[in-house]
Amino acid sequence: MKIFDEKGIKMLTYDFTNVEGALYKHLYKCIKADINSGKLGINEKMPSKRTLAKNLGISTITVENAYDQLMGEGYIYAIPKKGYYVSEISQMVNIKKPVLIQHDIKEPDLETEKIYDFSSNYTNPENFPFSIWAKLMRENMSYNKSELLKVPSYRGVLLLREAIAGHLASFRGMNVEPAQIIVGAGTEYLYELLIKLFGKDKIYCVENPGYKKIAQIYNSNGIECRYANMDEKGVCVDELSMVKADIAHISPTHHFPTGITMPVSRRYEILAWANKEEGRYIIEDDYDSEFRLNGRPVPTLQSIDACGRVIYMNTFSKSLTPAIRISYMVLPGHLAEHFYEKLSFYSCTVPTFEQYTLAEFIKQGYFEKHINRMRLYYVRKRQKILECINSCFDESECKVIENDSGLHFLLEFSTKLKDRDLEKRLMDKKIRLNALTSFYHTPYFEDRHQFILNYSNIDMEGLNEALSTVKMMLRGKYK
Amino acid sequence: MKIFDEKGIKMLTYDFTNVEGALYKHLYKCIKADINSGKLGINEKMPSKRTLAKNLGISTITVENAYDQLMGEGYIYAIPKKGYYVSEISQMVNIKKPVLIQHDIKEPDLETEKIYDFSSNYTNPENFPFSIWAKLMRENMSYNKSELLKVPSYRGVLLLREAIAGHLASFRGMNVEPAQIIVGAGTEYLYELLIKLFGKDKIYCVENPGYKKIAQIYNSNGIECRYANMDEKGVCVDELSMVKADIAHISPTHHFPTGITMPVSRRYEILAWANKEEGRYIIEDDYDSEFRLNGRPVPTLQSIDACGRVIYMNTFSKSLTPAIRISYMVLPGHLAEHFYEKLSFYSCTVPTFEQYTLAEFIKQGYFEKHINRMRLYYVRKRQKILECINSCFDESECKVIENDSGLHFLLEFSTKLKDRDLEKRLMDKKIRLNALTSFYHTPYFEDRHQFILNYSNIDMEGLNEALSTVKMMLRGKYK
Repeated sequence: MKIFDEKGIKMLTYDFTNVEGALYKHLYKCIKADINSGKLGINEKMPSKRTLAKNLGISTITVENAYDQLMGEGYIYAIPKKGYYVSEISQMVNIKKPVLIQHDIKEPDLETEKIYDFSSNYTNPENFPFSIWAKLMRENMSYNKSELLKVPSYRGVLLLREAIAGHLASFRGMNVEPAQIIVGAGTEYLYELLIKLFGKDKIYCVENPGYKKIAQIYNSNGIECRYANMDEKGVCVDELSMVKADIAHISPTHHFPTGITMPVSRRYEILAWANKEEGRYIIEDDYDSEFRLNGRPVPTLQSIDACGRVIYMNTFSKSLTPAIRISYMVLPGHLAEHFYEKLSFYSCTVPTFEQYTLAEFIKQGYFEKHINRMRLYYVRKRQKILECINSCFDESECKVIENDSGLHFLLEFSTKLKDRDLEKRLMDKKIRLNALTSFYHTPYFEDRHQFILNYSNIDMEGLNEALSTVKMMLRGKYK
Repeated sequence: MKIFDEKGIKMLTYDFTNVEGALYKHLYKCIKADINSGKLGINEKMPSKRTLAKNLGISTITVENAYDQLMGEGYIYAIPKKGYYVSEISQMVNIKKPVLIQHDIKEPDLETEKIYDFSSNYTNPENFPFSIWAKLMRENMSYNKSELLKVPSYRGVLLLREAIAGHLASFRGMNVEPAQIIVGAGTEYLYELLIKLFGKDKIYCVENPGYKKIAQIYNSNGIECRYANMDEKGVCVDELSMVKADIAHISPTHHFPTGITMPVSRRYEILAWANKEEGRYIIEDDYDSEFRLNGRPVPTLQSIDACGRVIYMNTFSKSLTPAIRISYMVLPGHLAEHFYEKLSFYSCTVPTFEQYTLAEFIKQGYFEKHINRMRLYYVRKRQKILECINSCFDESECKVIENDSGLHFLLEFSTKLKDRDLEKRLMDKKIRLNALTSFYHTPYFEDRHQFILNYSNIDMEGLNEALSTVKMMLRGKYK
């Protein structure tokens, strides 16, 4: 076997016995290894394809494929009519075999700890209308193929927006055009679109107390949002003025965590506030308005807004399941146009498969039926829970504070424990029950010990035991 | 009928003949109208429920329901043991009937103009594996109900991340943990997560020329991104240093629009650049690497990155369909941990239904089969297109510049027309063909007239006609 050929070019010799897979890959790997190790030096001429093939007893095509691969990856280069040469890959020499820097990356999926969770706002899987959903999905995939694969408008699929407009008209008395509606993968995502729409120089204001995630999202977008205090009618208009808010982000229908429904008088006050200065807007988060359990729903701010100051926002997370990740917002006409100019290059974030299925679900009346069924389910569940509470606690130690709406209410305990202390002690017993005070941004005075009971997904079987544990805790029976 | 009762309280009289729907709603509406019109003044006492019921000849329950509704909405208030009073709703008086400010909101869904589009990077609906997808979706909805409705990790469903890790190992030779993977609704969304992860004070740099949307997204997040010029090996490392980049956002496998595959030598240079200073990172967008049509794929930057400087990103938009909106990124270990600390409060934006279906699609080997089938489909399609081009144009007027990868290549025309001019004239003939120069951020010298031909979804039937139009245009046959 020759080491150099007749032209003085180093001949390459590799073992081709027992090669698994394509021969050219084997050859490619061998040459690459020789380049990496320095056996083949920078700018060294490679043997011609034919010579190498002959020497190794393989076909010229095999050598050609290997050389092509090496060229493609930059290990060798060609000079027309002269031949192939080894590239200068100076940076390669000292790179070690890649090792992943080992950090402790938590995989929370694997958490299996069982907690009795009064704070979960998830829905109960048993209530999801799987058979209808599967049927509609199947029909879409059979008869609607080309629409399903079309990239929809940045606003979302038109059919879905029409269905939502119809639902809002019949359910909330709102008169909106499909072109005002933007569909997105969750309200969190929609908040961020609004931040881009309004800009970061605006002053955003959220409710105090309030749903913490909203403030987190503003913060992680580099906005330090401000806080407006609540009274018994909802957010105080004076507070909005005081913090110089441009954008008020509120949930007037059913405030979380207090459960307050903003009365009409306050609604008009807040609309008046928004109209007082150019550039002021209200984000109305109507997240669980479907579950007003008694009486007629209160009209939305959007529906009594005469001047285009309200962005209405809602989600199917509560009314269907958070797993489908579909939310939407309704923009006033001029903002819808502004959105088009500024942000329509963003693709809609919801898969068309889900959008068309949901559109049919609404249009064919299944959504209304589902809501009605769920409302009855929640009324009964709530009733049972209230009975459990009443039979567990003395009237003097636990008072239920509920209004007619939504999927949570408040428990007011008489206890000498501090709220944080009670929360922590309950967590030690694997019970998660959050104090109202933990949703305050500002320091608060713990005059009343109110705790939030989200009941949409609590397990009725473990309820009595969990409540007994709370009672024992209140009575100081546990340390 | 009395006007005032014995206590001097104004008696309310409404017509209850021909009432449609619930009586209480009718009464509620009548009283509300009287409050709005001012007939019932601020703080005026309302008749007692019993008296009003008697006077109107309806049940006390009906009046009670109406009063409850009015209370809930804030129109009236109660003073215990005294009765009901009209609220002060000062702001209401001058609000007119809501009118939507009429702006011209475009509904692009309704655009029906037929354009022969060489710029579309969509996939052909006929190639989507509907029957398998429907089968997997159905199986999931039958046997995996409770998992489907669980809210997944912020990273996405574990099963999907395991499937992706497996795919990356066999297909790209990458060794990654599922815990490093973040699943999101499109790469655009993932870019924004990275902006939040790295912060806005970093200097982000994109390729010039390059995919314009990336710069748009940085800009709409308030970041003025910088540009690094390309040479024939890809982005120039000197340029990255010159603009003081912290984050280099590149597509080394198959650059858009030039089609350049970065050779290994340049890859190591760019890794060396990233390692030179703390806080430097490379975002490697591997968007159509599945469709390298010849030879073995070039190793990813991620797989030769020894120090955790590369964020690998890919999408199922090219390999399956953009309509399912699933992309993912692979973070180095320490960034995965940083992500967990800083951004895990964000919900995953992809519906679990799609995530589980895709996970099974990959795990059961359908994805690999689909890619192989599509690769063959694209090889053939590309071949046919090249034949059409060769038979339409003289060699001197149109040169094809292609490499072995991806779903687009370049046409270089000899023409006296300016690129913009040719683009515009073709658009007038309903043909969209974009010049390479239009993807440059900086002023460019039009020495070569190169145009981009995306072929994944072009209609073969209209191709010859479209090419003939281009030819006529080049020859100056059209004005």
